[in-house]
Amino acid sequence: MTDTGLAGWMQAMQQRTETALDARLPGLDHSARDLSAAMRYAVLGGGKRVRPLLVFAAGELAKAPWPALDAAACAVELVHAYSLVHDDLPCMDDDVLRRGKPTCHVAHGEATALLAGDALQTLAFDALSAPLDDVPAGRQLQMLQCLARASGAAGMCGGQAIDLASVGQPLEQTELEYMHCLKTGALIRAAVLLGAHAGQADRAMLDALDAYAKRIGLAFQVIDDVLDCEGDAATLGKTAGKDAAHDKPTYVSLMGLGEAKAYARALHADALAALAPFGDRARRLGELADYIVVRSF
Amino acid sequence: MTDTGLAGWMQAMQQRTETALDARLPGLDHSARDLSAAMRYAVLGGGKRVRPLLVFAAGELAKAPWPALDAAACAVELVHAYSLVHDDLPCMDDDVLRRGKPTCHVAHGEATALLAGDALQTLAFDALSAPLDDVPAGRQLQMLQCLARASGAAGMCGGQAIDLASVGQPLEQTELEYMHCLKTGALIRAAVLLGAHAGQADRAMLDALDAYAKRIGLAFQVIDDVLDCEGDAATLGKTAGKDAAHDKPTYVSLMGLGEAKAYARALHADALAALAPFGDRARRLGELADYIVVRSF
Repeated sequence: MTDTGLAGWMQAMQQRTETALDARLPGLDHSARDLSAAMRYAVLGGGKRVRPLLVFAAGELAKAPWPALDAAACAVELVHAYSLVHDDLPCMDDDVLRRGKPTCHVAHGEATALLAGDALQTLAFDALSAPLDDVPAGRQLQMLQCLARASGAAGMCGGQAIDLASVGQPLEQTELEYMHCLKTGALIRAAVLLGAHAGQADRAMLDALDAYAKRIGLAFQVIDDVLDCEGDAATLGKTAGKDAAHDKPTYVSLMGLGEAKAYARALHADALAALAPFGDRARRLGELADYIVVRSF
Repeated sequence: MTDTGLAGWMQAMQQRTETALDARLPGLDHSARDLSAAMRYAVLGGGKRVRPLLVFAAGELAKAPWPALDAAACAVELVHAYSLVHDDLPCMDDDVLRRGKPTCHVAHGEATALLAGDALQTLAFDALSAPLDDVPAGRQLQMLQCLARASGAAGMCGGQAIDLASVGQPLEQTELEYMHCLKTGALIRAAVLLGAHAGQADRAMLDALDAYAKRIGLAFQVIDDVLDCEGDAATLGKTAGKDAAHDKPTYVSLMGLGEAKAYARALHADALAALAPFGDRARRLGELADYIVVRSF
């Protein structure tokens, strides 16, 4: 696997994720057909699968077994997917375009989209609590706890709530950073740590991966703000400029475009520095850091 | 504990549940204060805690350790609470009154209520994945899997979706029963099984408890329809007659009031019969079956 280039590896892991998600999602012969259809619509056939890629890359470093990585990759992606469905709802961002298609509630109705998001979150914990042969039960519980902490009020949901409360508020950079650490950073960090927990990561490796994950999580958000400012809907796959339109503080509005780009580059360099002890064994994680930052400039 | 009457035991277990929930919910000093406040509003100080009571009663029969029962009781109640918050939203039942107070979105706004429901579901899995000293990790994973299956597309969410699709549809009794088996029955069944899994339940006990739980889950719903038809908002703690107003099929609309009551009585008798092998050790479960059916007539 380490012989292929990044593009080939990414494609293989994205395909692997798609297959694993498909197998866990309820089929269209399910009794609650509308719900299944909405869940599948929100999850399959779209997205760059950045979080699953991080699970697989960290798992490769930690020599984790594939079935555990499949379960972890599905779990983080399902949490991410549910959060997008709910985030797009009229009472939140009221967005109509996501990954280049109509948002889930536009395509399936608001009530079904709400339920689909709920059931996708449940499916994340279902996927990660199903029996795994190659991971001790105690470690699997640790993975579940890691995902729950990253997703709830002390993680992603908490970040979204702070974001919600900050509309029209002049946030300082430290406050903005704290919000993003929770809103997007917590789940990206969980992705890296789940891959590590699934394998044989010792304390030193977990600490280094945590430092790496925090930096790329933040860089990811800075770049998102840059793209939201510079991009158009076609390349972005979602409505461009929506944060500015909603009067939400962004890194660009706070630092200016040039400074925001420089900040992303500095975070990228710090992330790579955290991987240094592992040399070529952390190659994929390094390449993913490049990918996250380079996607815009 | 077996010396007290049902009322005293219920009060003690309800208090125990309240304390355990309070300890797991984020505090009001939390950075996402609006979210914490909405979560606490939706969960604390209300409800009869029927599902936690079932966890404790089954746990008593299976000789389960208290910390595991506290975690399980919180987990099922948090799933139940999140489902009520989302169910009351304008795009679902659009309800303004719950447990005698304004619904969560009326009190805290729609976006915050949506996030609070999301974070409550996460907290359920957080509570059940936190380390437990007295339960083997493999058994704890089984409990998590049981809760996830009962809550998602194959359980509660699936039942809600079928319910949604059935508005204005003439459902047969078997279809109505299937919908309720998922919508309310799955979580009630999970409550009983979680209590049993937390202790030393063998296959025979699990099967008997499952038979008991299916009957009381169904009886619970039949009685709910009876109360919805007969009750007023003051005794019910929520808007009365809302199912009929939304043109949803109910046991009363399908069987008539007298037949629905007789059906609930028959389910009650079957539930008690399933407990017979355990004699007085299953006393609390028997009393809870009485409580569920007798609350109306």
